[in-house]
Amino acid sequence: MDTLRALENIPGFKVATVQANIRNWEKPRRDLALIVADAPASAAGMFTQNQVAAAPVKMDKKHLKASDGIARAILVNAGVANACTGREGKRIAVKNVEQIADKLKCPPEQVLVASTGVIGRQLPTEKMANGINQAFKDLGKAKPGDFAKAIMTTDIKPKEASLVLDSEDGIILSGACKGSGMIAPNMATMLAFILTNAAVSPKALKAALKETADATFNMVSIDGDTSTNDSLFIMASGMTDAPAIDKPSGKRYDKFLAGLYEVSMSLSRQIAADGEGATKLVKVRVVNAKKHKDAVAAARTIAESPLVKTAMFGNDPNWGRIMMALGRSAAQVEEDKVSVSLCGRRMFSQGAPVLFDAAELSGLMKAKEIELEVDLGLGKGEALMLTCDFSYEYVKINADYTT
Amino acid sequence: MDTLRALENIPGFKVATVQANIRNWEKPRRDLALIVADAPASAAGMFTQNQVAAAPVKMDKKHLKASDGIARAILVNAGVANACTGREGKRIAVKNVEQIADKLKCPPEQVLVASTGVIGRQLPTEKMANGINQAFKDLGKAKPGDFAKAIMTTDIKPKEASLVLDSEDGIILSGACKGSGMIAPNMATMLAFILTNAAVSPKALKAALKETADATFNMVSIDGDTSTNDSLFIMASGMTDAPAIDKPSGKRYDKFLAGLYEVSMSLSRQIAADGEGATKLVKVRVVNAKKHKDAVAAARTIAESPLVKTAMFGNDPNWGRIMMALGRSAAQVEEDKVSVSLCGRRMFSQGAPVLFDAAELSGLMKAKEIELEVDLGLGKGEALMLTCDFSYEYVKINADYTT
Repeated sequence: MDTLRALENIPGFKVATVQANIRNWEKPRRDLALIVADAPASAAGMFTQNQVAAAPVKMDKKHLKASDGIARAILVNAGVANACTGREGKRIAVKNVEQIADKLKCPPEQVLVASTGVIGRQLPTEKMANGINQAFKDLGKAKPGDFAKAIMTTDIKPKEASLVLDSEDGIILSGACKGSGMIAPNMATMLAFILTNAAVSPKALKAALKETADATFNMVSIDGDTSTNDSLFIMASGMTDAPAIDKPSGKRYDKFLAGLYEVSMSLSRQIAADGEGATKLVKVRVVNAKKHKDAVAAARTIAESPLVKTAMFGNDPNWGRIMMALGRSAAQVEEDKVSVSLCGRRMFSQGAPVLFDAAELSGLMKAKEIELEVDLGLGKGEALMLTCDFSYEYVKINADYTT
Repeated sequence: MDTLRALENIPGFKVATVQANIRNWEKPRRDLALIVADAPASAAGMFTQNQVAAAPVKMDKKHLKASDGIARAILVNAGVANACTGREGKRIAVKNVEQIADKLKCPPEQVLVASTGVIGRQLPTEKMANGINQAFKDLGKAKPGDFAKAIMTTDIKPKEASLVLDSEDGIILSGACKGSGMIAPNMATMLAFILTNAAVSPKALKAALKETADATFNMVSIDGDTSTNDSLFIMASGMTDAPAIDKPSGKRYDKFLAGLYEVSMSLSRQIAADGEGATKLVKVRVVNAKKHKDAVAAARTIAESPLVKTAMFGNDPNWGRIMMALGRSAAQVEEDKVSVSLCGRRMFSQGAPVLFDAAELSGLMKAKEIELEVDLGLGKGEALMLTCDFSYEYVKINADYTT
């Protein structure tokens, strides 16, 4: 990756990664990261819909509201999720935030936190405090790729994406994220962080993040399980001479939105492709649904069906399972209008099976990325869901974990 | 099993099982079964909620309505599901029904059919016709257990349950079913058949079946996937001197309902315990929910979570995953009122983790049947869901199948 585009090098931000030893990792590794904006920056976040939300998630929501979408720092740790930890968990999160706010001489509500790891375990108070102190000493020293590595849990690959939105203005969007099983093996979660030097108002930033996330991060599903800690953040430093984007409309906003979509989609694909035990990325596209929500419901149910996912793992062009999953979804379905294709080969057409070369199709299914398309023939609703197959390895990773 | 209680020996019914060779089975086996009532009998049925319902399901619903809950026969085949088969599939089902109605000299709407097997393949017309002829020749010759074996697909064990409701009156309830993955490996489905010699009006029979199924068969989930063919039937011959049950209330009705619940619960447990690749039965009990529907939603989401199910397979007392699944369910949840137990050991109490002996609990989890209890602390709603763990074997069975 072009180092100029790295998340560690976005104008207006400094990044540090630290080995805080939050868990007894098998190999020594960095497990704490800090992003600091040189000056108050526009910020927005989106968080898990899970009713059992972790302490950092509850705090971030409050902070973004109280600060009117302005932030100075984001602290991230891997190893302990700080979820289901009661009052003590909340106390530790507050303490970490106060330590950072003191250093930056900013209000606590301008500090955000994110955690990923084991549920129900408390963060080690002293290790966190020491780690934060070290992070301030190392601020700005993180090299390209360091941040993405420090936030990993069961991820196999670090996940980064970036683009130059406007080379004339020098505007860059750069992101990093972690994924794997949604919460498995009890220490994974989707966390994503995007930084830009564009000047964007908090209101416009929030709107852009929501619109983008609904079509990208929210359309990824590994196993249908939703973490207690899922969080997506964006910060905009405004370190550019280009005019500011003040409202969620207009040509400049649309260009920013398109760039944000591209970075988010790349990160989302990387999460799906690196799902726990995944051997391939599976794109589930539903077209011509009665309404958009029908397309989303159908795509999600097919993408999360264990029987569809095991068939994708086994290179089995089993369209019957796709029809079964479609039929049990909340989408409006008329069987005799449905068509199903896999890897570009039609298997079922307007309610009736079609002859196809199953052996050839099974061969095509061995690709690292395959697409499954369902045409509902009822309207213009469309949705694309990103998922992965379901392998022995998924069961192994998630069964062999012991507290 | 006491042969007098066997489904093959219920007064007023005759049963035949036939080797019709509907599929090229690895070993020769019986794959067609016919139940015939000596005279028109009360009958009721419940069917899959899947929008992509198989031809037999669509037909049965019409027949039970047209006949006002009276039936003479049920034909069952294993090997081909007759789902997603378009007009041709419907034509074959109609043909089979007409052949049976001709033999019995009854209206076609008094004949019911059930299929289980591969989706999208047509039933072999001639083999079905020959099989039906043979079944009429063999009627009454089926031995105890023959019916349960003839309807199996990927099931490892045949599933039967019966009880003598009233020894004085000689009233018996006897059932057989098949389960395994909900539709996997593309040839499994839940089919259940219950016969009784009690005299019960169609209206009372329908009410009893609905009430029972909602608390038993509808609370079983192997993988969250719903077959295109799920069907549950009950027929009552009235071959008894005991007084008839005419309406869905009163002492005699309540006694019948209790007996039907017991038989249905036994069959449901057998289905869950024999889920594809299952190593144990997992009972998920939710108590003190705000409302009954909250209890059902919570129990279902926990029972269907791949992360909870793999933890149960790995004997991992991972309460964090249970909390995660609970939190993403539609049930009303207040984290600080929730308590979670496994095998009778408390792990999480009113919003905070509790110290427990994880090694001891992991040992207890090795049992063939384990219970997980979630107390929501909000009301009086209760639900019990039956499921199984998620093993390597599940992935293997469902990935290695090729059309």
